Amino acid sequence: MVLETINGPADVKALQPAQLQTLADEVREALIGRLSRTGGHVGSNLGVVELTVALHRVFSSPQDKIVWDVSHQCYAHKILTGRKAAYLDPAHFHDVTGFTNPRESEHDCFKVGHTATSVSLALGLAKGRDAAGGTENIIAVIGDGALGGGEAYEGLNTAGAYKKNLIIILNDNDQSVAENHGGLYACLKALRATGGNSENNFFRALGLDYRYLDDGHDVLRLVALLESVRDIDHPIVLHIRTIKGKGLPYAETDRENWHSAGPFHVADGSPKNGPPKYDTTVHDSLTALLERDKTAVVLTAGTPRALGFVGEDRAAWERTGRFVDVGIAEENAMAMASGIARYGGTAVFGVYAPFLQRAYDQLSHDLCLNNNPATVLVLLPGAFGMKSDTHLGLCDIPMLTHVPNLVYLAPETREEYLEMFRYATTQKQHPTAIRVPVRFYSRENKDETTFLPGRAKVLRKGSGTALIAVGALLPMALDAADAFEKETGRPLTVINPCFLSGVDEVLLNALKKDHRLVVTMEDGELDGGYGQRVASFYGSSGLRVINLGISKAFHSDFRADALLEAHGMSVQKIIHLIQTQEG
Amino acid sequence: MVLETINGPADVKALQPAQLQTLADEVREALIGRLSRTGGHVGSNLGVVELTVALHRVFSSPQDKIVWDVSHQCYAHKILTGRKAAYLDPAHFHDVTGFTNPRESEHDCFKVGHTATSVSLALGLAKGRDAAGGTENIIAVIGDGALGGGEAYEGLNTAGAYKKNLIIILNDNDQSVAENHGGLYACLKALRATGGNSENNFFRALGLDYRYLDDGHDVLRLVALLESVRDIDHPIVLHIRTIKGKGLPYAETDRENWHSAGPFHVADGSPKNGPPKYDTTVHDSLTALLERDKTAVVLTAGTPRALGFVGEDRAAWERTGRFVDVGIAEENAMAMASGIARYGGTAVFGVYAPFLQRAYDQLSHDLCLNNNPATVLVLLPGAFGMKSDTHLGLCDIPMLTHVPNLVYLAPETREEYLEMFRYATTQKQHPTAIRVPVRFYSRENKDETTFLPGRAKVLRKGSGTALIAVGALLPMALDAADAFEKETGRPLTVINPCFLSGVDEVLLNALKKDHRLVVTMEDGELDGGYGQRVASFYGSSGLRVINLGISKAFHSDFRADALLEAHGMSVQKIIHLIQTQEG
Repeated sequence: MVLETINGPADVKALQPAQLQTLADEVREALIGRLSRTGGHVGSNLGVVELTVALHRVFSSPQDKIVWDVSHQCYAHKILTGRKAAYLDPAHFHDVTGFTNPRESEHDCFKVGHTATSVSLALGLAKGRDAAGGTENIIAVIGDGALGGGEAYEGLNTAGAYKKNLIIILNDNDQSVAENHGGLYACLKALRATGGNSENNFFRALGLDYRYLDDGHDVLRLVALLESVRDIDHPIVLHIRTIKGKGLPYAETDRENWHSAGPFHVADGSPKNGPPKYDTTVHDSLTALLERDKTAVVLTAGTPRALGFVGEDRAAWERTGRFVDVGIAEENAMAMASGIARYGGTAVFGVYAPFLQRAYDQLSHDLCLNNNPATVLVLLPGAFGMKSDTHLGLCDIPMLTHVPNLVYLAPETREEYLEMFRYATTQKQHPTAIRVPVRFYSRENKDETTFLPGRAKVLRKGSGTALIAVGALLPMALDAADAFEKETGRPLTVINPCFLSGVDEVLLNALKKDHRLVVTMEDGELDGGYGQRVASFYGSSGLRVINLGISKAFHSDFRADALLEAHGMSVQKIIHLIQTQEG
Repeated sequence: MVLETINGPADVKALQPAQLQTLADEVREALIGRLSRTGGHVGSNLGVVELTVALHRVFSSPQDKIVWDVSHQCYAHKILTGRKAAYLDPAHFHDVTGFTNPRESEHDCFKVGHTATSVSLALGLAKGRDAAGGTENIIAVIGDGALGGGEAYEGLNTAGAYKKNLIIILNDNDQSVAENHGGLYACLKALRATGGNSENNFFRALGLDYRYLDDGHDVLRLVALLESVRDIDHPIVLHIRTIKGKGLPYAETDRENWHSAGPFHVADGSPKNGPPKYDTTVHDSLTALLERDKTAVVLTAGTPRALGFVGEDRAAWERTGRFVDVGIAEENAMAMASGIARYGGTAVFGVYAPFLQRAYDQLSHDLCLNNNPATVLVLLPGAFGMKSDTHLGLCDIPMLTHVPNLVYLAPETREEYLEMFRYATTQKQHPTAIRVPVRFYSRENKDETTFLPGRAKVLRKGSGTALIAVGALLPMALDAADAFEKETGRPLTVINPCFLSGVDEVLLNALKKDHRLVVTMEDGELDGGYGQRVASFYGSSGLRVINLGISKAFHSDFRADALLEAHGMSVQKIIHLIQTQEG
């Protein structure tokens, strides 16, 4: 086994040329072995095995620096840079994360999980090198899907006027997370069809040197191409065609489903844990909107599955022009939402919380400054959402609640979500964001109050202490109130704030009468969050406030309940807190 | 006078063709008349006079919709759409703002001040039109400088795959705020040199139809071009060459200085109020850094003057590769800063507060997640900074202080700025942002304490009430303390928090001993700001906190002192507040 001999890039260089494809085959086998057990980013990793072998054959990392865009395709890179055990030995599967990480290895330049970042980051390394008088090669590896993102373009444009070594590898597998969208992709298609010789080359238009390689799985040709540009004295784009999911026929065919997947049977790709279960609440709400409101347009920035739109259902809505995937271009999606709403249409942009931050300026300036009544669905927010520091979802409340004109709603139950969604998409007064629950609770008939904009809801009326718990933490707050009452005979007040972009001053003032303590609970960052507004409101009142929330840090690889408990949020800890503070 | 007859676009359509240039000349004269009295965006407005006349000749606003990028070039548009008095009659100069504004006129589609937004916003209008079954023309007018921004690219890429009417006018005057940077500009130059026929057309590469017009000041040719694309059934880019500052020889020559200017004498362009005075503190600190640290690289995103770099000084530093203008591409600049710091270099990115928000994702993900020790200089922050809602600078504290790993420093005096700048650019532990004072106070020897990371400074030790005032408000806090002591004989405590990304817990705890009230003062938004952290810290302590700050709104056209006073921040109001609360 060749892979046995590989403990770092130097070992790749020591191989005979004929062994390189063997190494690639073994790496691919290792990847399939682990991916089939743990799941992960299947397609992108299988697609860059030969490219990764060639990179470490030709360049000398860590002196030469490779920046992986998104870095979800870094598994082969990790295998070749001293971390193969994490892919071969189940006991070591958890030694590494799914993204590049400088703390893991000197061969990883950045911790990244966001798309379209590599060219600019590599340019920064290159400028750092120049200032220090270095001579290393700087390499960015970017996918075709990422080229739709503005940051990638800004980097390419700057690179086009840069005069020193920079190698940009376009790993073109003709697929984003879902299919690609945008005029650029016709250009890439034409380049692929002509061996890189078609008219109006996007990269040459930006002043970049350019080479095309059709077979991105021919490791010797890859090595030859990379050798030909090693130590090049100017930026160049190497446009390399690869096959997403290479080596697994079902993944090569169904590239969207195999972008990332859970554990699967290698033989046929069937999932080991049964088919993934999707809650259809969001999808159903959007479909109902599209059906009842002919001016409605739903936007996604490259993640249509996140909204539940797949297959023929998606295709059919796309044909109407009212379900629009702009590719990984959140800025554009947010601005378009503003434009649609300005025209008078009903615009909904659904986006994962960590990626919403990519459109912060457009949210503030393009949408909220204009006070256009578009709706933003914030998906996987807070501690129950994404769990990697590369995909920070803990900052949604601090990020959104200081933006003027924006109303940020936090439903708890399915019924409440639907109520708020209907409110947001029918009112014409202001932009609204909805903190879509990761899990939809349903209280059915237990909560018969109607959501009123600007008003919080009292779910349980007590005295002494009030718990104000954001959306997903209401079940914990209610449990704590139950347990507390059982133990002490005293009922607590439990409040659902419903809207996070302000406080319900009427209700908060009313609490002063018969409460001495307010405890706020949020499954997001404390600093700049909802609770601090409550603390500020009560600052001079004599009523005491304790804010519970997540500390300001790039928390990663956490379990939601453990993270919350570590920040004082569990039924027991809350009861203890109240007893301590009241006593 | 033709302009006398023009009260709206219909009147432009009623003119004889031969009158159109006369109208343009009169509009230009009106612009010069007002600009020379009030100042404003000189170059961009003089450059689009004929284009604007042609647009309103050919298209029918407000049914047809014109989206002006940045919208600093909208003065002629305002003149032709019922607002000419604001340019002809000094009594009406203040009737209009310097940017498009839907509240002013149905001919203005959006309130905008940020670059690179028009194509996406226009696409949104177009999608809104499609959903509603409309047939109007949608037109975006975008400058060459704006094409360096990622949002513009994202919009163009989406437009390249769009199948309906959309007219994108590239107003190419071969100049950004300063000179252009990036590979794209060689492409535009080649297109200009070849009448639009050079190889590797950037727009065609994105799938867009394309036409070129060399003389953007020939109103009849402009009319003919626009007529030829009216009601076109697909997106098209009209690349039109114009002259920035057209009609004022000195403005045509010195395009950077005349991008915007104060009142001037028309005869020779000399300023009426004497030469503008620039504080050189920032420039000097950067120059000293570049000289003492050969790994230092200073970055700007299209606004080198904001850092004091002009003329040969700038050119010389640019030649070293260590002063880098990436064009209006804040995302790229922020990511590059992270890369430079990762390499080991000293990176400083200076950016106006309102534009920093365009790189929020890159600040969080590309820089802070990686904890790379780059420095961000936040220019013109808070109430003393920019004064238009299109350039919102009031959110810097809420926006920055929840981002993990980032240390946000707020100096008051010149000496403190220099101390903090040196700290930020020599430590290697974390990214730092500095809230650069709009006006540098100097206390010289009065404050001899040294800045210590994480520590606040007690400027005046009293008891009972403590004022914690962010940077620029310290003079007010000290004056209030003086006046209060004079009146009551009791000294107040005055604290400079120095760093805003956390609170100095040691000091805050110490205040509990002999203080009953803490008043925080910040010249930025209250919601999510510094003061609310203090309120949260003291929430359960019994010590009372009052947070003073600006309300969450798109405040515009304010005087800083009036805005602050309206939010309780003046010497008298603070004294009154303390007396009320203490009593």
